[in-house]
Amino acid sequence: MSNELSYPKTSVSKVNRYNNRAHYDTTTIHQIINSTPVLHVSFLTPSNPKDPTSPPLPTILPMIGQMGSFTHPSADESEPLDCYLHGYVSSRLMNLSRANPSIPICIAATKLDGLVLSLTPNSHSYNYRSAVLHGSASLVEDVEEKLYAMRLVTESVVPGRWEGTRIPPDETELTSTSVLRVKVSSASAKVRAAGPGDERKDVENEEVTGRVWTGVVPVWENFGEPVPGGEGVGGVAPGYVREFVEGWNMRERGYAEGVAGKVYGS
Amino acid sequence: MSNELSYPKTSVSKVNRYNNRAHYDTTTIHQIINSTPVLHVSFLTPSNPKDPTSPPLPTILPMIGQMGSFTHPSADESEPLDCYLHGYVSSRLMNLSRANPSIPICIAATKLDGLVLSLTPNSHSYNYRSAVLHGSASLVEDVEEKLYAMRLVTESVVPGRWEGTRIPPDETELTSTSVLRVKVSSASAKVRAAGPGDERKDVENEEVTGRVWTGVVPVWENFGEPVPGGEGVGGVAPGYVREFVEGWNMRERGYAEGVAGKVYGS
Repeated sequence: MSNELSYPKTSVSKVNRYNNRAHYDTTTIHQIINSTPVLHVSFLTPSNPKDPTSPPLPTILPMIGQMGSFTHPSADESEPLDCYLHGYVSSRLMNLSRANPSIPICIAATKLDGLVLSLTPNSHSYNYRSAVLHGSASLVEDVEEKLYAMRLVTESVVPGRWEGTRIPPDETELTSTSVLRVKVSSASAKVRAAGPGDERKDVENEEVTGRVWTGVVPVWENFGEPVPGGEGVGGVAPGYVREFVEGWNMRERGYAEGVAGKVYGS
Repeated sequence: MSNELSYPKTSVSKVNRYNNRAHYDTTTIHQIINSTPVLHVSFLTPSNPKDPTSPPLPTILPMIGQMGSFTHPSADESEPLDCYLHGYVSSRLMNLSRANPSIPICIAATKLDGLVLSLTPNSHSYNYRSAVLHGSASLVEDVEEKLYAMRLVTESVVPGRWEGTRIPPDETELTSTSVLRVKVSSASAKVRAAGPGDERKDVENEEVTGRVWTGVVPVWENFGEPVPGGEGVGGVAPGYVREFVEGWNMRERGYAEGVAGKVYGS
């Protein structure tokens, strides 16, 4: 572990509660971001839109994003990376980004891995993998970097999809698409991956342990059978789509079921 | 639709992009919140923790929450409700809530329903159901209301679970648990639920439509076979757990597969 890169623990990123579940290494954090199909992105908006100096309110948008490096495209998830965001970018976020060279932003990715059912409501929990990034977002202006990010994001949805479609994006598509590059200043991850944990007072109460069922319901985001539709060639989905669906399900299901059976605290 | 309650469209909640996907009625919004196991909650933290007047930064926490009404507990999802939050409440959020009678907060719930694979990267999309609430959060101090919220949240994880465990929470559990009540000031939902949509320039290009596969990969959060563990009575999970798992999977899978086959724009 000692030769791994880690994000700094700052006042905004340091995990206070259940800090034995905390991770600061780049690999853990980048993998969670990169395997979460929807990221939640938070930024500040003026409470009075006509007065930029009015007290700010927090706002969240669901967006698609991916860690990457335009200057070192072959960098892997252990290396320093930026977060590229692309999605239903409301005019609010884009107007803010156009009016400011950089804006403070927070990005969260959470994968639910199981419902942890314990002896008491208070000991109930989830198995999960969660990452939170803090940083500053800037609009990508360079066309090459924009194309890099569009490809990165498309390939994250289904690897092989970029080449499998009509590319490159034309002039209109490039100008109508907005991409944000987020320089990460601090980040942390939290992972719970085990069976139920209960307090001694309940574990030692035979009336309770003899009556209450405890265990974990594994949870994973399941990809179903691809359904042909739209205006493309019909029929069975291409191999790269089917292989991705099968690989995703095997990995996600295997993880959720694997951690469900682990003894808490071991 | 006209006799349904709706949240007001405000500058922070109004959907600007793809506003044909927008919903403001209480039922749609509350159902999305209540069927999303992990909510993302955003609030402001001072950039310098030692100086509460320093410029704020946005922060996100994943939390468990549920819409409910302590004063009208039998209210259904079409009625006015508060959002009760309970989860890995960092000391930051709790300290903020203790120091202020109410703090501005934003809550997002997103359900991914499908990967929409179109002719071009730019037309790629997701099927999803997403809701965003804006409001103000206050710590729940009243013991009866806290118990109401703890039960509400536990029952949202698995209906029947509250009675199936060691209850009621004891004095220590009640004082160590924090619950936030969020009064919602505005809210909106966005839903995409159809097959691929492409632009005429690509639909009319036979080289593209004859080569590119288009369709939807349905996605749903799948609940697996319950895995016994921990200190409770072992064996097969009780009926209320198994029925919930089966019902959840049938409903979520059915929805994702159903919308995958719908023609876009129809």
